[in-house]
Amino acid sequence: MASLAQFSELQFALNTFYLLISGALVMWMAAGFSMLEAGLVRSKNTTEILTKNITLYAIACTLFLLVGYGIMYRGNDAGGIIPSLALLLGEADSEASHALAADFFFQVVFVATAMSIVSGAVAERMKLNAFLLFSVVLTGFIYPVEGYWSWGGGFLKSAGFVDFAGSGIVHMAGAAAALAGVLLLGPRLGKYRRDGSINAIPGANMPLAALGTLILWMGWFGFNGGSQLALSSYDDANAIADVFVNTNAAAATGAISALLMTRLLWQKADLTMILNGALAGLVAITADPVSPTPLWAAAIGVSAGVLVVLSIIALDRLHLDDPVGAISVHGVVGLLGLLWVPVNNSEASWSAQLLGAFSIFTWVFLCSLLLWWLLKVCIGIRVSAEDEYQGADISDCGVEAYPEFSGSGKRN
Amino acid sequence: MASLAQFSELQFALNTFYLLISGALVMWMAAGFSMLEAGLVRSKNTTEILTKNITLYAIACTLFLLVGYGIMYRGNDAGGIIPSLALLLGEADSEASHALAADFFFQVVFVATAMSIVSGAVAERMKLNAFLLFSVVLTGFIYPVEGYWSWGGGFLKSAGFVDFAGSGIVHMAGAAAALAGVLLLGPRLGKYRRDGSINAIPGANMPLAALGTLILWMGWFGFNGGSQLALSSYDDANAIADVFVNTNAAAATGAISALLMTRLLWQKADLTMILNGALAGLVAITADPVSPTPLWAAAIGVSAGVLVVLSIIALDRLHLDDPVGAISVHGVVGLLGLLWVPVNNSEASWSAQLLGAFSIFTWVFLCSLLLWWLLKVCIGIRVSAEDEYQGADISDCGVEAYPEFSGSGKRN
Amino acid sequence: MASLAQFSELQFALNTFYLLISGALVMWMAAGFSMLEAGLVRSKNTTEILTKNITLYAIACTLFLLVGYGIMYRGNDAGGIIPSLALLLGEADSEASHALAADFFFQVVFVATAMSIVSGAVAERMKLNAFLLFSVVLTGFIYPVEGYWSWGGGFLKSAGFVDFAGSGIVHMAGAAAALAGVLLLGPRLGKYRRDGSINAIPGANMPLAALGTLILWMGWFGFNGGSQLALSSYDDANAIADVFVNTNAAAATGAISALLMTRLLWQKADLTMILNGALAGLVAITADPVSPTPLWAAAIGVSAGVLVVLSIIALDRLHLDDPVGAISVHGVVGLLGLLWVPVNNSEASWSAQLLGAFSIFTWVFLCSLLLWWLLKVCIGIRVSAEDEYQGADISDCGVEAYPEFSGSGKRN
Repeated sequence: MASLAQFSELQFALNTFYLLISGALVMWMAAGFSMLEAGLVRSKNTTEILTKNITLYAIACTLFLLVGYGIMYRGNDAGGIIPSLALLLGEADSEASHALAADFFFQVVFVATAMSIVSGAVAERMKLNAFLLFSVVLTGFIYPVEGYWSWGGGFLKSAGFVDFAGSGIVHMAGAAAALAGVLLLGPRLGKYRRDGSINAIPGANMPLAALGTLILWMGWFGFNGGSQLALSSYDDANAIADVFVNTNAAAATGAISALLMTRLLWQKADLTMILNGALAGLVAITADPVSPTPLWAAAIGVSAGVLVVLSIIALDRLHLDDPVGAISVHGVVGLLGLLWVPVNNSEASWSAQLLGAFSIFTWVFLCSLLLWWLLKVCIGIRVSAEDEYQGADISDCGVEAYPEFSGSGKRN
Repeated sequence: MASLAQFSELQFALNTFYLLISGALVMWMAAGFSMLEAGLVRSKNTTEILTKNITLYAIACTLFLLVGYGIMYRGNDAGGIIPSLALLLGEADSEASHALAADFFFQVVFVATAMSIVSGAVAERMKLNAFLLFSVVLTGFIYPVEGYWSWGGGFLKSAGFVDFAGSGIVHMAGAAAALAGVLLLGPRLGKYRRDGSINAIPGANMPLAALGTLILWMGWFGFNGGSQLALSSYDDANAIADVFVNTNAAAATGAISALLMTRLLWQKADLTMILNGALAGLVAITADPVSPTPLWAAAIGVSAGVLVVLSIIALDRLHLDDPVGAISVHGVVGLLGLLWVPVNNSEASWSAQLLGAFSIFTWVFLCSLLLWWLLKVCIGIRVSAEDEYQGADISDCGVEAYPEFSGSGKRN
Repeated sequence: MASLAQFSELQFALNTFYLLISGALVMWMAAGFSMLEAGLVRSKNTTEILTKNITLYAIACTLFLLVGYGIMYRGNDAGGIIPSLALLLGEADSEASHALAADFFFQVVFVATAMSIVSGAVAERMKLNAFLLFSVVLTGFIYPVEGYWSWGGGFLKSAGFVDFAGSGIVHMAGAAAALAGVLLLGPRLGKYRRDGSINAIPGANMPLAALGTLILWMGWFGFNGGSQLALSSYDDANAIADVFVNTNAAAATGAISALLMTRLLWQKADLTMILNGALAGLVAITADPVSPTPLWAAAIGVSAGVLVVLSIIALDRLHLDDPVGAISVHGVVGLLGLLWVPVNNSEASWSAQLLGAFSIFTWVFLCSLLLWWLLKVCIGIRVSAEDEYQGADISDCGVEAYPEFSGSGKRN
């Protein structure tokens, strides 16, 4: 007969494998952000945005290994605000239901996601140097501190804040850092005319943008599905299956509602808005993909798709230049996702959700503003007007993205 | 000691995870079809084909959630023809060996596959509106009805029709809907000259077409591998491993035989034919990837690679314009796959296979013909000649796919 | 109560699933190599490099099924040099902890990886025919023989050579075959000027190169993670989780150190070098991703990122033209990975590692040199100067990669 020890061993193996596969899917989101952003910028800034995306992923993984995981998860007080400092991963708990390294691997790919959100919003005018230095601090310090507040057992967890997979902790946090950067950086040259009118700057490569979105959609099954953190019981397995269905449903209805919005507004099916609608549905369901029925998940997706279109239009009118719509998709809709939770989850309350959103936003936004400002004073955060005109690919990377396809983009 | 109940719980968790990961791989095929089709059309129609692919996936997931799954799987008579109407997912069976939501998630991505086949065949001249309305009916009604006949326990199952993962139920069904559309739509302007000669219209982006094919190849491991529906026994695990090996072998030999065909015919290695050869191998093995030995799987792939090249040539001579070869790959070779089954599977018979193929084709083709005709009468299904000349990206989406890379395609 | 037999069945199912998913991730690396190489060549040779990549994968899978797996794994003497000849997969061992077909599927995708390395190094001037004939022999004979020496239980295993997932057996072997080809083939026209100076030939599509690298990064979790070959115990699960973390850490620090190197050398962040740095980190950790702590893995990655940049520069000065840097990434850094093993693994020794590296390199290099020479004498291995000028897409495939985007590449 099989002993309980053998049985636990098999549970341990299954849970570990589940976390690792989920983590690999979230790692894959790095490719999603890379392709999405490479598709939505102009060709003259494409190599640079790819460089930012790959390097930020590398930096996030390294910094979270060195200090971030320790800050977020090790030796902290329950219910606290200030985490203790710890390096590396520490020792495995002998009672753990999965490998410690698997937990780290799953968590580390989330950090990179938060930072990926920033690169899109500041694209086409932010210096590579400044961006990479910022990513060191965000992934090694700013994110781990607020992550501790909920997932590390800090005060937001005690306060009843519910954010299953990070609509606020990951997505809105990334958007808050992006917003601070955009405010200090200003819009791209030529984006807003002297009379205040808006100059649409189309992305250079729609297939890449669509591919990026579909990669993110796929990766999100790891992002949300893995956040149950255990698979081996009936309840866990059923919950994870519900998460997959709800995540998919919200993305689908987000895309459809954004399509209908653009048909209403402009009589065209604007692909970039449809892509952002799908991503908005994904962001909104992330705060709680377990509790809603599939129909509620579809409703959440509809609301996200409508809101993201309105938000992108509104931010543009405010002359906040966000080339890929990241602040709307991840920030505005991230907040929406947090506020949807109490509708379907009786353990959540709007007061706790607002406290969480306020705390996370304030912390990340203020830290980021200070950091961007320091970088601006010390080394400058914006490329020169000449380099911006010529494109960051030449000035920062020395490598053109499409050297054989001469385009008007270089002269845009 | 571990109890049987604990043991069942672990089986349940493993089976659920297996279905969810398989489903995620099939969902990924949406990206495969998007990239394949975006690579094989001209640049002026690329945004529109991306829009169709992403939106049809969203519509398929939504409609199958609302009504399709209920029609196909819930409360139907065994051996019947007309399914009962049911909404949403229903209640889980207490004896089930995996989560109900995981089963839904796996099944829903199949619907989208069927619809994806259509978009390629009608590319570059079908109105976006008409296409999306068609997809609502196909995924919410036409497909679920014929799906019930086999996988929902209807009359084809009783008759002994064998179609493991859907060579007929999914692929040939999609091709039947596509064929009806192509017949009513006519060829692209300039494709066939007045003297009857054929004007080859090359796709704009071969790397995308290759990427799409490799995505589909990968996703097919979920498509076929997941169709065993359970993993937790020796027999199931061995069957699934055989499915992976056979699926891969058929794709490989399909690609090689298509390569050899094009060398024989044109002394060139025509990449688009090689890609279609790999896909043909995948379609053909799908009807039964369990029973053949790997050598038989390789033989099935060879036959598929040869047939798909001949079929694409033949359809072109018949002036049936199918820009990506979808009717040949999924329809003609889907039928081939069904007819291969009795060679290796003693439970199958050619009479049952022909009955199944005839029933599915007739149902889907006639329904689709009626529906396309209604759409043609009511709103029109073809873009105007001017819009076709200029490209659907401008007229339907208002967004160019590659705005900076001016190409001859726009003036093609 | 659950019996031991039931329990073994569940272990068997879990291990089989783990191998199949790992194999699917390695199969996905075929897309990674395709996109990486398609991005790094000029547009006029893009269809041809895609054709090579897809066809070599198909050939590798077919040949390894027919003879390669039999040679490498079946009926061989322990500790021997010459394997016995066996066809197909043979019979499953009744004691096996996973399905035989799953083992085959996992192993077959490794063969294709070895061959993919070659296509990049000989790109833009090698005839398609010659390349495909070479791939038949490499995947059906050369690789299986040296694979037997370690993984099939031959003399290198007895000698204590440690190569967990193939820094030497797969990567350095591929690079050795590539080097032999490059020596007989010579550089691309115009790459080195008469005065010995180097003409940089930029790749046509950086987003594809970045996408390819991220696909490879993801696929490597299957490549290294699956090489533990079993999952169902505490030790296995923990080892696999460590492998994921170390693999990711080495890739990350490889990218960062390559970035810093290019900043030091050229004051620019050269994206292609950063991509090669990440891949170098992956290659180097592959020889033993289990034993190092994450910090050691990071150190291995740093060394790999530095070495690969220096190696690429050195090979270029030696006028060894390798358009994608494959010999440096997989060969030079593959050797580095083998030599790192004894630092963290007390069961390894430098003498055994050197014996292994020497044996593998010598065997593969000499066989390949002979084979390329035979091909050169019999059918020629290099395209004509005219075809090289015009591009292999037209001469070998008859299909342009980007027919609508006229570029200077065609006249480069």
